[in-house]
Amino acid sequence: MQKAVILLSGGLDSATCLAISKQNGFEPYALSFRYGQRHEFEIDSAGAIAKSLGAKEHVISNIDLRAFGGSALTDDIDVPKDRDEALFSKDIPITYVPARNTIFLSFSLAYAEVLNASDIFIGVNALDYSGYPDCRPEYISSFQNMANLATKSGIEGQSHIQIHTPLINLTKAEIIRLGIEMGVDYSLTHSCYDPKEDGTACSHCDACKLRLKGFEEAGLTDPLTYSD
Amino acid sequence: MQKAVILLSGGLDSATCLAISKQNGFEPYALSFRYGQRHEFEIDSAGAIAKSLGAKEHVISNIDLRAFGGSALTDDIDVPKDRDEALFSKDIPITYVPARNTIFLSFSLAYAEVLNASDIFIGVNALDYSGYPDCRPEYISSFQNMANLATKSGIEGQSHIQIHTPLINLTKAEIIRLGIEMGVDYSLTHSCYDPKEDGTACSHCDACKLRLKGFEEAGLTDPLTYSD
Repeated sequence: MQKAVILLSGGLDSATCLAISKQNGFEPYALSFRYGQRHEFEIDSAGAIAKSLGAKEHVISNIDLRAFGGSALTDDIDVPKDRDEALFSKDIPITYVPARNTIFLSFSLAYAEVLNASDIFIGVNALDYSGYPDCRPEYISSFQNMANLATKSGIEGQSHIQIHTPLINLTKAEIIRLGIEMGVDYSLTHSCYDPKEDGTACSHCDACKLRLKGFEEAGLTDPLTYSD
Repeated sequence: MQKAVILLSGGLDSATCLAISKQNGFEPYALSFRYGQRHEFEIDSAGAIAKSLGAKEHVISNIDLRAFGGSALTDDIDVPKDRDEALFSKDIPITYVPARNTIFLSFSLAYAEVLNASDIFIGVNALDYSGYPDCRPEYISSFQNMANLATKSGIEGQSHIQIHTPLINLTKAEIIRLGIEMGVDYSLTHSCYDPKEDGTACSHCDACKLRLKGFEEAGLTDPLTYSD
């Protein structure tokens, strides 16, 4: 069985991505980050998902993105609430963490190289996203080109790194329907940028709004509890 | 004054790179990593160099590359000694840390984005190097392309990220001569992969051999003490 590295945030998209990697015949190695985010609920969720979907290994890497600042997800800046959805794919919001996907993909590349794996899965989405530059297809394709020059296998002309983005052209509703078909337990996932102290999702941040809209459009009920 | 991020390892090359960034009119922001390397001498050296050369800021980022393993620089694997220099640019040695420069450059990209800087300096070298894939010009160029799609400035069509590699075509002797002209104090730098407990350089690892050969070819004396 071929090994694949799956970037697992603990959210709905990356959980679905992990299930897809298995369906495609890969043995999944999950990778999560403790990166200075405001809360640890997503790390707990990542652990539960990795276990539930049978990841072969789950590495949690500690990196500190707070040293640089510049985002509401790592700093003491208010998470925006009830933003107009028409703006989601236009503005780059304050929840954007500088170069985050580049950093996450770089670590997944190191992990893949050590595992002797050529396949990396990331749950980025170009439709229902929050306007982040590092979720665009042209960015992913460019990272893949770079990755193939960065590593031993590149210099030795061996196997080629492939960055898989199975969700990139799916709507949130399509992702949810797909996940349900594959048996993903979305009650284990965590999406909210600004949960209550007990982990309850806020229902007003971009992530909650996209998620709730996705379940509604899929004609399904979100198994999570929301604070209001 | 335009800000630039300088990747500062504490070694001879990156110290020279910092001096060059200043000579080119940039205000230098130095970035070092505590990445699970076997010793901390290079972090101490990086601090001393940043101070000595007047870096505006020096961020030390904690990241753990030991989680992935696979290198003599982070794991409990012997550092090779007295390797044939003819092999340095042919084999990829066990001191190669998987995807290290990709990870370091990714963090420098996050730092640059927060500083609103477009310039990043890295002291990679394509001549007197150790055969690492992520020191090659085609790799750097590819990283730069990716970086310009990864960030806010990329999506907004603003300023372009430039990865400066002023040492890429210089021999070690040329780098040392250049640094001496600019007043770099090489007694503050640390190059050895496997120093004694008091920090004394071993003189037998690839890094020591390249450094000693460089000083010899430059007709200069290395200010460091070596154990034998």
